Amino acid sequence: MAGTFILRARTGRAFHLRRGATLRITNTFGSQVVDTWAFKADDIAEFMSMEHTRVHSSTASPVKGTIFRSNRRSPMLDFVEDTSPGVHDWFFAACDQSRYEMLGSEAAHDNCSDNLKQAMREIGHSITHVPCPLNLFENAPLLAGDTAIHPPVSRPGDFVAFTALADLIICLSACPQDMADTNGTGREPRDVDVEVT
Amino acid sequence: MAGTFILRARTGRAFHLRRGATLRITNTFGSQVVDTWAFKADDIAEFMSMEHTRVHSSTASPVKGTIFRSNRRSPMLDFVEDTSPGVHDWFFAACDQSRYEMLGSEAAHDNCSDNLKQAMREIGHSITHVPCPLNLFENAPLLAGDTAIHPPVSRPGDFVAFTALADLIICLSACPQDMADTNGTGREPRDVDVEVT
Repeated sequence: MAGTFILRARTGRAFHLRRGATLRITNTFGSQVVDTWAFKADDIAEFMSMEHTRVHSSTASPVKGTIFRSNRRSPMLDFVEDTSPGVHDWFFAACDQSRYEMLGSEAAHDNCSDNLKQAMREIGHSITHVPCPLNLFENAPLLAGDTAIHPPVSRPGDFVAFTALADLIICLSACPQDMADTNGTGREPRDVDVEVT
Repeated sequence: MAGTFILRARTGRAFHLRRGATLRITNTFGSQVVDTWAFKADDIAEFMSMEHTRVHSSTASPVKGTIFRSNRRSPMLDFVEDTSPGVHDWFFAACDQSRYEMLGSEAAHDNCSDNLKQAMREIGHSITHVPCPLNLFENAPLLAGDTAIHPPVSRPGDFVAFTALADLIICLSACPQDMADTNGTGREPRDVDVEVT
């Protein structure tokens, strides 16, 4: 795809991203965490892997300049721009129904894992394994020995951009977390602007 | 299973561990990293997940007292004893053929990912996804912002022990890494003693 769309609060969307294309994700309201996955377009068994990326990264957290690699160690995304304070997470699993039940939710709750499965289904793919996502704008200072997830430090309009290093399917989920401060102390999931060029 | 066995250098082994059983892994020579996985015995699609464990752990690294959780957030292993200096890794992917090729190996090289697949095959299971392992004794001080893998700080005879919190299949791989200092500056993979009681 090329063009722009609004990733609605609490929802996910999957789309193709051709090698060489640029993906720009704008934190429109400043407080929204975006769970991000990438799969090889011709074989979704190959996916962007945080634990493989870390082996080859020269940084302990995901920052501008990071080359994200697949579970087969091939280059997937190049993190080319970041106007935010540069705080993102790659240590924590995507939220899921179990997470919300453990937080006290008794009803079904929107969640990033189901958003991934649903978004991929909508473009004809069935996901069995939910890889650890790249959690854009998530403020989880684990490197400082702090195991809590804090409100984002990003500001309205901050954006990140990636160049595709292979023909990919990208899935983004505007995290529906409203039972913790992941998406800000207001606990209100918000829309996110996405541009592909 | 119950009893003891020697996990031979460079190899993997998978075995059943009943709920309530204790698994003890002794770093016989002090310098050997052991990649460790756990799967639910009745459904290997549910496996021990480092990224899910971290969400619920109150520590930033795997230490005595950590409850390891599955990709469905259910308790799998309780880390009940550690006589080593307590340095273990849960951030880095298992080694694989690609890793050794990137280090300059031109031939097939033993690796933990293939050890997992082979060991699971030997007890009748086919693995498609290689979860991020618990890398026992691996000295990767990522929390200190250091992205290198250093020689282990464990000593001969140091051991760790876990209690099974469900009926599990465990797979251990004595990491075959001999092209980096992961298993000590001598770069010599060594045997490991394993006991189940």
